[in-house]
Amino acid sequence: MKILDCTLRDGGYYTNWDFSKELVNNYLKSFNDLPADYLEIGYRSNPMNEYLGEYFYCPVYLLEEIRSLSKKKLVIILNEKDVRPEHVSALLSPCIGLIDMVRIALDPQYLGRALKLAAEIKKLNFEVGFNIMYMSKWKNYGGFLDEIKYVDEVADYFYMVDSYGGVYPGDVIETIKMVKERTTCPIGFHGHNNMELGLINSLTAIEHGAEIIDVTITGMGRGAGNLKTELLLTALNAKEGLEVDFNTLSILVDSFEKLQKQYSWGSNLPYMVSGANSLPQKDVMEWVSRRFYSFNSIIRALQNQKKGIKDN
Amino acid sequence: MKILDCTLRDGGYYTNWDFSKELVNNYLKSFNDLPADYLEIGYRSNPMNEYLGEYFYCPVYLLEEIRSLSKKKLVIILNEKDVRPEHVSALLSPCIGLIDMVRIALDPQYLGRALKLAAEIKKLNFEVGFNIMYMSKWKNYGGFLDEIKYVDEVADYFYMVDSYGGVYPGDVIETIKMVKERTTCPIGFHGHNNMELGLINSLTAIEHGAEIIDVTITGMGRGAGNLKTELLLTALNAKEGLEVDFNTLSILVDSFEKLQKQYSWGSNLPYMVSGANSLPQKDVMEWVSRRFYSFNSIIRALQNQKKGIKDN
Repeated sequence: MKILDCTLRDGGYYTNWDFSKELVNNYLKSFNDLPADYLEIGYRSNPMNEYLGEYFYCPVYLLEEIRSLSKKKLVIILNEKDVRPEHVSALLSPCIGLIDMVRIALDPQYLGRALKLAAEIKKLNFEVGFNIMYMSKWKNYGGFLDEIKYVDEVADYFYMVDSYGGVYPGDVIETIKMVKERTTCPIGFHGHNNMELGLINSLTAIEHGAEIIDVTITGMGRGAGNLKTELLLTALNAKEGLEVDFNTLSILVDSFEKLQKQYSWGSNLPYMVSGANSLPQKDVMEWVSRRFYSFNSIIRALQNQKKGIKDN
Repeated sequence: MKILDCTLRDGGYYTNWDFSKELVNNYLKSFNDLPADYLEIGYRSNPMNEYLGEYFYCPVYLLEEIRSLSKKKLVIILNEKDVRPEHVSALLSPCIGLIDMVRIALDPQYLGRALKLAAEIKKLNFEVGFNIMYMSKWKNYGGFLDEIKYVDEVADYFYMVDSYGGVYPGDVIETIKMVKERTTCPIGFHGHNNMELGLINSLTAIEHGAEIIDVTITGMGRGAGNLKTELLLTALNAKEGLEVDFNTLSILVDSFEKLQKQYSWGSNLPYMVSGANSLPQKDVMEWVSRRFYSFNSIIRALQNQKKGIKDN
């Protein structure tokens, strides 16, 4: 079983993908002594109109510096919606020798397009991971389910992403079964923590054959955040005897808890409601960050979305 | 299925059982519109040497005021270790007509003594609940297991308390089975949230026949805290259609989140380690609250406890 820490990539949703050098250096050095297999550093992206920080583009000088500091396999991720096969060479050739795996974050309806993108990436000899969103709604995507069988040829990991943070262990088991009937590609799980189910869903996924789990330090990540690295490591240490250097881990956690005081990621009532009802947490995150919305009005808006009533 | 909110009782570990009148009045009024069956207000206790606040003693004037504001069944709890049958009349007769249930918090090795205490309480016509600690270690208490059969006669609820916050859903299922083989008393579950397993353990307990679940607003409670009221209500709303007034709930949650900023309950790495390894969180709570201990030294102390090495 492998562990992928994506704190910088997923945590970037809070810091707009800017991180201090001190924080990142401590992060990389700490992980050299911790049991994770992959570190996902950020995105590689074509130029965007809005301002987005260093870890949204991962320029080569940054990747070189990170490569020199880390003993782990390094990962970057692409947003499928923004990248086409013809961009692959320019975006990824500079990463050869610096990055080990390229992941593709995708909406299940575009799996066909993503397969072509993955084929281009494979030509550059990267490992490829598919991070496929909205797992709680996969059953509604007939075409997607039919295309899963083509994943074997181009992907090293097939991730189920609990985008809404609303799946339960029973759903994880059912979805793994559905995937295993269609592909032999190793399965991954990326959980969100809206309902505080990140740990149990991940342990359930492992028990039912998932081979890689995503985590972030203190759960830093979009919306309600992710399964906490420190929680999975502590659980696996106690249950399976996984070796964990808790002194290193505690210093690392401490450095991100300082940021958490500033940005306040983690679950709260609006995120619980959005998770429990499979509503987009992106909306909630925007409402919560605009101070003039009270929690009350956010929850009313969520309840209206659920009923199909438009917000004011 | 019934819900018992014990925010004031269990949250008192952080505030030394002092709460502002404004907070408590808002709490009581909010719950009049929320789906909980019981509110546990605090302890009734013989005089103690150290200073402990109003909600550790629950004097009659306080109970009268609370009774006048709440439509819910009201509960107080006794610490079995501090109360003997001969104290019952003086402690509890004044509560007749004000309080509906008396709970007894007990170490499983003293179930025999608690049965006698419960018999005295029953004479005053209160409902009686047993909150039996250390459920992860019950299998080691042979005498306790043999005495469970006597519970039927004197208790209305038999609570499994996950004192260390370290049990998993599989443990919950196994323990319920063990209890059901010995008594027909309705089963309750009181979870702690060290490993963020409060929700899934409680839902598992319900699924396997538990009839009452303890919760606290924002999880306020000893150490890493409890299953969050708002999380259980949100889950049951989405899963079972339980009616929840989210506007009322959000105002209530908001009022306790202000206190949380001050007292910082909730899980963190030391509590995760204590939960995962069934080590007393009381120790961790004391270490964390004394500022001169770093997390590092706390985790070292926990690791030493686990290895049986004495702290310095």
